[in-house]
Amino acid sequence: MIIDCHGHYTTTPPQVGEYREQQKAALAKDPDHIGEKGNLNISDDEIRDSIETNQLRLQRERGTDLTIFSPRASWMGHHIGNQHTSRFWSEQQNDLIHRVCTLFPDNFAPVAQLPQSPGVSPEKSIPELLRCVEEMGFIGCNLNPDTTGGYWKDASLADKTFYPLYEKLVELEVPAMIHVSAACNDCFHTTGSHYLGADTTAFQQLIMSDVFKDFPDLKIIIPHGGGAAPYHWGRFRGLMQDRGLAPLEQSALKNIYFDTCVYHQRGIDLLLDIIPADNILFASEMIGAVRGIDPESGHYYDDTKRYIDANTKLTDAERIKIFEGNAFKVFGRLKQKVYP
Amino acid sequence: MIIDCHGHYTTTPPQVGEYREQQKAALAKDPDHIGEKGNLNISDDEIRDSIETNQLRLQRERGTDLTIFSPRASWMGHHIGNQHTSRFWSEQQNDLIHRVCTLFPDNFAPVAQLPQSPGVSPEKSIPELLRCVEEMGFIGCNLNPDTTGGYWKDASLADKTFYPLYEKLVELEVPAMIHVSAACNDCFHTTGSHYLGADTTAFQQLIMSDVFKDFPDLKIIIPHGGGAAPYHWGRFRGLMQDRGLAPLEQSALKNIYFDTCVYHQRGIDLLLDIIPADNILFASEMIGAVRGIDPESGHYYDDTKRYIDANTKLTDAERIKIFEGNAFKVFGRLKQKVYP
Repeated sequence: MIIDCHGHYTTTPPQVGEYREQQKAALAKDPDHIGEKGNLNISDDEIRDSIETNQLRLQRERGTDLTIFSPRASWMGHHIGNQHTSRFWSEQQNDLIHRVCTLFPDNFAPVAQLPQSPGVSPEKSIPELLRCVEEMGFIGCNLNPDTTGGYWKDASLADKTFYPLYEKLVELEVPAMIHVSAACNDCFHTTGSHYLGADTTAFQQLIMSDVFKDFPDLKIIIPHGGGAAPYHWGRFRGLMQDRGLAPLEQSALKNIYFDTCVYHQRGIDLLLDIIPADNILFASEMIGAVRGIDPESGHYYDDTKRYIDANTKLTDAERIKIFEGNAFKVFGRLKQKVYP
Repeated sequence: MIIDCHGHYTTTPPQVGEYREQQKAALAKDPDHIGEKGNLNISDDEIRDSIETNQLRLQRERGTDLTIFSPRASWMGHHIGNQHTSRFWSEQQNDLIHRVCTLFPDNFAPVAQLPQSPGVSPEKSIPELLRCVEEMGFIGCNLNPDTTGGYWKDASLADKTFYPLYEKLVELEVPAMIHVSAACNDCFHTTGSHYLGADTTAFQQLIMSDVFKDFPDLKIIIPHGGGAAPYHWGRFRGLMQDRGLAPLEQSALKNIYFDTCVYHQRGIDLLLDIIPADNILFASEMIGAVRGIDPESGHYYDDTKRYIDANTKLTDAERIKIFEGNAFKVFGRLKQKVYP
């Protein structure tokens, strides 16, 4: 079984964007606008169409089986509006993911967007997390380390304000993938420098924090191959050592996992060479940041399965861990979902 | 000849820190404090001691010949105080670099800190650049892409406010190394996530900008192995392609160079494998971010010459470019300095 742990619903019917534009229009008139959840008025057929012609088609073409699926990350837009904006928007987006996974239970497993907002305690996201996990069978969530969209004005993931959320994640056996949303800061390109910088930043925040001492069972996925971390593994090892902290392999790697969203062979080879196979989860993030075909290879940049297949150093056992075993280990609720 | 293109004077005598503390104390009383340049009262012997026992000793031990040397990057602190603060501080720091390079002309070549400040046009740094290059023989400068220390509140390097400075750099045949300073934002670790994130961000800003179309002779060095760029080369290639922009090899790599401050063998191997040898300059940034010895290799993490020596794919001609030839190409004023 080949499980892609990182896919977003980037191909939603147009009503989703219209709903969001209505939210923004109301906020333009009144930044404190509350509004209501409302209704997207999307039919099952519209959802089916949007998935069958896109993600499901690519699953079949690429030979993957199951995508762990969450709302479009760049649209989470936690910096937009207020906590009510994020709450209703997240509820709608998570409901849609639930519908996709109900329509295609063999192909998608649901992961939630959290209704975070700048200056609002992460604890406030717990009710939506509970609704998704307990009422709709979600198996994970995405956690934004910068709700301010590239200004980094909120607390670090090391901060105690995240602890009630971490406690709930552990209790629910639900991992968090660290994932920023669109940058509203012109210094950053959303799916390039912002995503990669945030991955590195989150990794750095966590490895030098007490988070994993305080939550030894917390499981965190750093996407996009861990940002810059594997490439600069020597720097991070050295920084830990200079501070008298335990080596990464004996500390952070008990809790941190990397996905394989690295879009070329030699990058994937480095990731597989540096990070233990036990800490790597297969992912492509299709249909996502990079949509073209690499003229050098003749294949989609984000067809990451090919790179893992082509790597010459992995053993069969390691490959199975990366494609399947680690996903079951990290997503504690996945087994029940796949083998009910 | 082995030229290390990236070294900072991190071992200054204590008067330097005292000067800075006095600036901060005056600013605490009055944020608009102007003050004056003043005097550091450091003797030549004190400078000699601070260099001979540190950078010069390591040059000899590691077998490198010349370090392109600039003020301590993490101490640039452009976010501190106002434009007068940065001006006097930069002048003092650059004067010190000049003294080091005058005392040890065979071992060090000078690169300037610019007196940038948040909200102040980069153009205002030109007088200090001219002073350093024309009066003191400097051959390069460090350019901070985020004077706000991790809040990214100033303009992107793509912004036209940088153009007068770029114009002057081209005219002077002086390259800029992109280098942030200490983070004053708790979300970031200065020499880890902030440095690496800024490298990636600067790369991203430049490759999608008009800067190199408008300044075809501008030369930019992205340090720390280019941040996350080489590891995610496929992502960046794909993002360029999706936007209809020219491939990196035919566009940005005519102007952008990477240094080799990557502190483990496999990271360096990736860099050398991905980036053409014409675009790589040897560097260690010693004595800098990581000061320990890697227990896996038995050598200093930042002894990057060993990694380049140990790489099995480089040809001799490529190795000479990386160690020497490219430095002369990028630093247009270096040849005159070395062979006056």
